[in-house]
Amino acid sequence: MNQDNIKYAKRMEKLSGSAIREIFNYANTPGSISFAGGNPGRFALPVDLVAQISHDLVQQNGYDLLQYGQTEGYFPLRESLLPYLLKTFKADVQMNEVLVTTGSMQGFDLLLKTLINPGDAVLTESPAFLGALQAMNAYEANIIPIKSDDRGIDIDHLQEMMRLHRPKLLYIIPTFQNPTGVSLSLERRRAVAELAAKYRVVVAEDDPYHALRYQGENLPSIKSFDDEGWVVLLGSFSKVISPGLRVGFMAGDAGLLRRCAVCKQSTDVHTPNLNQAIVDVFLRKGLIDTHIATIIPQYTELMQTMLDKIKVMEGIESYTNPEGGLFIFAKLAQGKEAIPLFKTAVTNGVSFVPGEYFYVQGGHKNTLRLSFSSSDKADILQGMELLKNSINQMQ
Amino acid sequence: MNQDNIKYAKRMEKLSGSAIREIFNYANTPGSISFAGGNPGRFALPVDLVAQISHDLVQQNGYDLLQYGQTEGYFPLRESLLPYLLKTFKADVQMNEVLVTTGSMQGFDLLLKTLINPGDAVLTESPAFLGALQAMNAYEANIIPIKSDDRGIDIDHLQEMMRLHRPKLLYIIPTFQNPTGVSLSLERRRAVAELAAKYRVVVAEDDPYHALRYQGENLPSIKSFDDEGWVVLLGSFSKVISPGLRVGFMAGDAGLLRRCAVCKQSTDVHTPNLNQAIVDVFLRKGLIDTHIATIIPQYTELMQTMLDKIKVMEGIESYTNPEGGLFIFAKLAQGKEAIPLFKTAVTNGVSFVPGEYFYVQGGHKNTLRLSFSSSDKADILQGMELLKNSINQMQ
Repeated sequence: MNQDNIKYAKRMEKLSGSAIREIFNYANTPGSISFAGGNPGRFALPVDLVAQISHDLVQQNGYDLLQYGQTEGYFPLRESLLPYLLKTFKADVQMNEVLVTTGSMQGFDLLLKTLINPGDAVLTESPAFLGALQAMNAYEANIIPIKSDDRGIDIDHLQEMMRLHRPKLLYIIPTFQNPTGVSLSLERRRAVAELAAKYRVVVAEDDPYHALRYQGENLPSIKSFDDEGWVVLLGSFSKVISPGLRVGFMAGDAGLLRRCAVCKQSTDVHTPNLNQAIVDVFLRKGLIDTHIATIIPQYTELMQTMLDKIKVMEGIESYTNPEGGLFIFAKLAQGKEAIPLFKTAVTNGVSFVPGEYFYVQGGHKNTLRLSFSSSDKADILQGMELLKNSINQMQ
Repeated sequence: MNQDNIKYAKRMEKLSGSAIREIFNYANTPGSISFAGGNPGRFALPVDLVAQISHDLVQQNGYDLLQYGQTEGYFPLRESLLPYLLKTFKADVQMNEVLVTTGSMQGFDLLLKTLINPGDAVLTESPAFLGALQAMNAYEANIIPIKSDDRGIDIDHLQEMMRLHRPKLLYIIPTFQNPTGVSLSLERRRAVAELAAKYRVVVAEDDPYHALRYQGENLPSIKSFDDEGWVVLLGSFSKVISPGLRVGFMAGDAGLLRRCAVCKQSTDVHTPNLNQAIVDVFLRKGLIDTHIATIIPQYTELMQTMLDKIKVMEGIESYTNPEGGLFIFAKLAQGKEAIPLFKTAVTNGVSFVPGEYFYVQGGHKNTLRLSFSSSDKADILQGMELLKNSINQMQ
């Protein structure tokens, strides 16, 4: 039909998403090496375990699993989330403070839906996760970027913006951030929790990479410092079991989560039961720990391989040095820009994501995000050579 | 925390959902007979098939299925949806006119998200599906109820309201409607498609019960009469395979669906792959047809059992006589009300849903919805006796 005929909602004006979709279309060209996506490596997907577990679950408990489930989540999974949250995130929550979601992205969407009117201020790190920016635009939020450095979000700037804009919500990835790989320091975690309570700002603490730590000590979540219930921890099993299963969770204030559940009721009604039950088995039987223990050495080697190459690469001015996660964020030498480099690199057979897409107001044209998670070591070595050649070609 | 501290979005004012949640809490009391929910019967859940199929799928194709998938849907399922849509709904659509959703409820949510600004008019049958009303409230729509009779929505009233309110969207369940069980006649289906084009109104044609026909001839979808692309067919495999898997679809205008996909990207990213692949196997191997053929005789008997009892029940003034689906809608004799009856009935061990919840403006206090789908024959016989006694107790 003639598209001029349909009158779309105002919220659609900011939702094109075309530039970044183009990037990923290029990145998926067969035969080329992709440092663009944040996909887990093939080795990180527990195929045999899931095949067996799903068969046994449906065989043993199929009439419950194939039936409608509770919007709040599959009861056994909500039970087994509690000790998992305590152990991994040092977050001590009760049953009514947990809501299962269809991936952690849905958790953030539900927070926006319950809290945000058009024009309401939402704070975010800068650079920030693209999907979160897209979600904020879908609710016509007034997005306020907060400066970040190598220890995460800048606390002084955060306080200033909280005072000035009286935001309802702060979105933050505290551990191995997307796109930078940087982690928020312990002191700053405590400070974020304190500022949230002082200025009455709900914190969406999105922490999907938390368990993928390759060095350094585990950091407690911001939620663990939250005495007054302003922090909602958003988590996901996408990076530690499987993204294709789409199972995540929210942990936070019971009243707020009850409203999120009402909103979830009229979107996907509930997260699929079988998928929740599979995750429950991983948690209940400790399979998640053994699985993570097998994938960490492999991710560690991949990250180190990429860092070793980037370290000696001419034309790279600086780069982050993450202790875990999937991403490295780099700066090209002054005067070089990542979008022209991307075009050259794609021609040469390697891709990445230009960094300016992660900035609310654009700019930062010399930055780029490199992911090491979905390539093997040989591909990383070869891809980084291709990237080096591409940079040289630009001179 | 003190709930006064959180400032919720305006859209939350109309989203309590507490009364109906109470109803379902009562209805789930162990030992009582529930005519309240719309759950498929136990016999209708293909447990052994799903156990085997899920195991084989993950074993054979696990690295793709456990990885991130496309927002538009799992490619093989989108392929196998096309002949299914043509055969079941007489809807002739192309690959770019199909979007897989996490249940058909999500499809309606996405339409609201792409189209509706606060205050925009949305038309709906009256009485209407509760979940859809809840979703409209979440987008602060101006909900305009349209009169319905035993052949579905009233076309004259529909035209008048389209002319008067210039709505963006019409929500309709044309086949074995929830809550009435009534089907829209062939002539009216054509008329709805024509009015949609004339007044430029997107039609959300929600048709989850379509294949559960126990008598009469299959009716083509409204979508089959749609030459200009104003009708979006929303479907689900919840009633014909499993609600717990949460797989549905949208079929409609490519441009509109592309925008729905952009919105889906920032909610659940994509519908879980394994779940989509299971449905794909059901479609591709024709298992869905053989499965439906085994469950129809059982639903037929359950519906007939309930109708036979209601036919001779004193205090029931009238009832619908559906040709399929899961619901019968009844009216109590003048002066009797369903909410007091509900309280008595629950005490006696049987539940249903009072009809007034399905009406935008309430009222219709003598109506009730009875579902026969999740009880066996003995339960229906006993439950209807308990209902009869409960009505008598009110005299």
